[in-house]
Amino acid sequence: MRTLGKATRYAVLGTGALGGFYGSLLNRAGCDVHFLLRSDYQHVRQHGMQIDTPLGSFRLNQPKVFADVQAIPEVDVVLVCWKSTQNGSLREALQHLCRAEGSCVLVLQNGLDVERTAADIVGDHRVLGGCCFLCCNKIGPGHICHLDYGRIAFGEYSAELRGLVTDRMQLIANDFRRAGIEIEATPDLVNVRWRKLMWNIPYNGLSVILQADTGQMMADPHARQLVREVMTEVRDSAVACGHSIEDAFIEKLLKDTEKMVPYDSSMLLDYRAKRPMEVETIFGNPLRAAQKAGFNAPRVACLYRQLAFLNQRNIAACE
Amino acid sequence: MRTLGKATRYAVLGTGALGGFYGSLLNRAGCDVHFLLRSDYQHVRQHGMQIDTPLGSFRLNQPKVFADVQAIPEVDVVLVCWKSTQNGSLREALQHLCRAEGSCVLVLQNGLDVERTAADIVGDHRVLGGCCFLCCNKIGPGHICHLDYGRIAFGEYSAELRGLVTDRMQLIANDFRRAGIEIEATPDLVNVRWRKLMWNIPYNGLSVILQADTGQMMADPHARQLVREVMTEVRDSAVACGHSIEDAFIEKLLKDTEKMVPYDSSMLLDYRAKRPMEVETIFGNPLRAAQKAGFNAPRVACLYRQLAFLNQRNIAACE
Repeated sequence: MRTLGKATRYAVLGTGALGGFYGSLLNRAGCDVHFLLRSDYQHVRQHGMQIDTPLGSFRLNQPKVFADVQAIPEVDVVLVCWKSTQNGSLREALQHLCRAEGSCVLVLQNGLDVERTAADIVGDHRVLGGCCFLCCNKIGPGHICHLDYGRIAFGEYSAELRGLVTDRMQLIANDFRRAGIEIEATPDLVNVRWRKLMWNIPYNGLSVILQADTGQMMADPHARQLVREVMTEVRDSAVACGHSIEDAFIEKLLKDTEKMVPYDSSMLLDYRAKRPMEVETIFGNPLRAAQKAGFNAPRVACLYRQLAFLNQRNIAACE
Repeated sequence: MRTLGKATRYAVLGTGALGGFYGSLLNRAGCDVHFLLRSDYQHVRQHGMQIDTPLGSFRLNQPKVFADVQAIPEVDVVLVCWKSTQNGSLREALQHLCRAEGSCVLVLQNGLDVERTAADIVGDHRVLGGCCFLCCNKIGPGHICHLDYGRIAFGEYSAELRGLVTDRMQLIANDFRRAGIEIEATPDLVNVRWRKLMWNIPYNGLSVILQADTGQMMADPHARQLVREVMTEVRDSAVACGHSIEDAFIEKLLKDTEKMVPYDSSMLLDYRAKRPMEVETIFGNPLRAAQKAGFNAPRVACLYRQLAFLNQRNIAACE
């Protein structure tokens, strides 16, 4: 890790809604942020990045943007912000970016055990995971629209460090807080991930199958009941895997979603844009974890198989 | 019932694929068939009806067609061929058509306990039910395309006559057989209906949700596995309701479907045309029957709620 007082150097892998939003806030707050882009590279290099947010919209005129990961210098922290479906490029990126011994990787992807791929590349002890509670869309090249929320719960991934608040966690938390991002160290990241899956599995999954936003689902008695049943099954899966999640959390999620601005899930946006959906990390991994623990989750399995079919056809249509 | 030797007089309620196909075959074989039509009335009155079928295509030049049920005379047998979603018109039709004491109603709709509505109007003892195994589409006004199969299993509905082969069943069976339609009296119509639901629930339901034909579903490992799981759940529902269906029947259905010409289910065609889908008779009734018998069918429930949502939105879009 670089010494205190010096700006922390970040690489943002995947400058979509999530990476663009957090990265831009860190950049504005004085961190040394390197953005990796693909399709938007030329546009952002010329026009910068626009962040629309109820927290106060702003523009980054000349962010450090890269189309080639090899052109990014060594960094202190790699933020893995792209979808897990893009992890095919992770090995090359991390081998290049994490040459310095103190560098670490914070995986901000959705789903269960999403840190595993990074850990296999750089070692468990250099990996952290974060769970983001963020409603944010990319609405155009370099144009991010933040709708609501933004909190991150994060923690160490390795079995030895799990639950501790390490120095590098302090440093990252300080940077994020200075940038205006709510972040907290969690003693049990996997529990937090399961809680997030209690939202993602019903709402992301059904949004694609029903082609509906959260508001439309909550307004229909059948969809609403199905959301509740799937959510309960995810909770029961987590409990079977040894995690404690109280009944009241189901009611809280349902109520919070009702109060939310109607929201097209990121999975629905991916599907419509014919991008691969994170079917394995969000549905397959939790389902397999539950099955290993002897718990049968038929509704989650049903969604998983439906989405796997839709995903396969959607991708094939682009080839 | 009219005396033997005289042509049986039929009314066909709903001259879509099923009613158009069976009615035309009966007509060609010399039965006195009265077709009730809606949108196609003018076209069929002027141009007749075209039946494309591997059994030998043919044309009915001047079938007896009616736009108003009140213009149809008393008949011996009413064939209820429209979708159960159109049963709102059943009372007026049956009260008019079944004035003669010996007349009866043969309900050829899909789903469970679909005879109930007719029985509530004319009395249980005048109702028969039939289960059709038919791949057939209406491809234009008065233009029916028969792809495969065609067998009917039928029986008396009332508790007293159930399982018997009554005189009117003999008469109907003779007419149908003379028309080239395979028809058999079944001692247990409800068992046959459950067996048909083992096909309809997975294939009709998933065809709408996945927007796929039977061939696409059977070619994808996830969809295929889901079909099998849902089918097994329907079988287990039937067993819970006291019906005996052997394991081997699941394998038979899967294999038969694989051998079939890839087929867009009638529910998928309804959905695409923004017509109401038979969600309650095909999904809701079996689900509630299983629940009453203490059996939980989570995958069927999942499909039921998804389809109820899609159906509601689809219909609302037309209003």
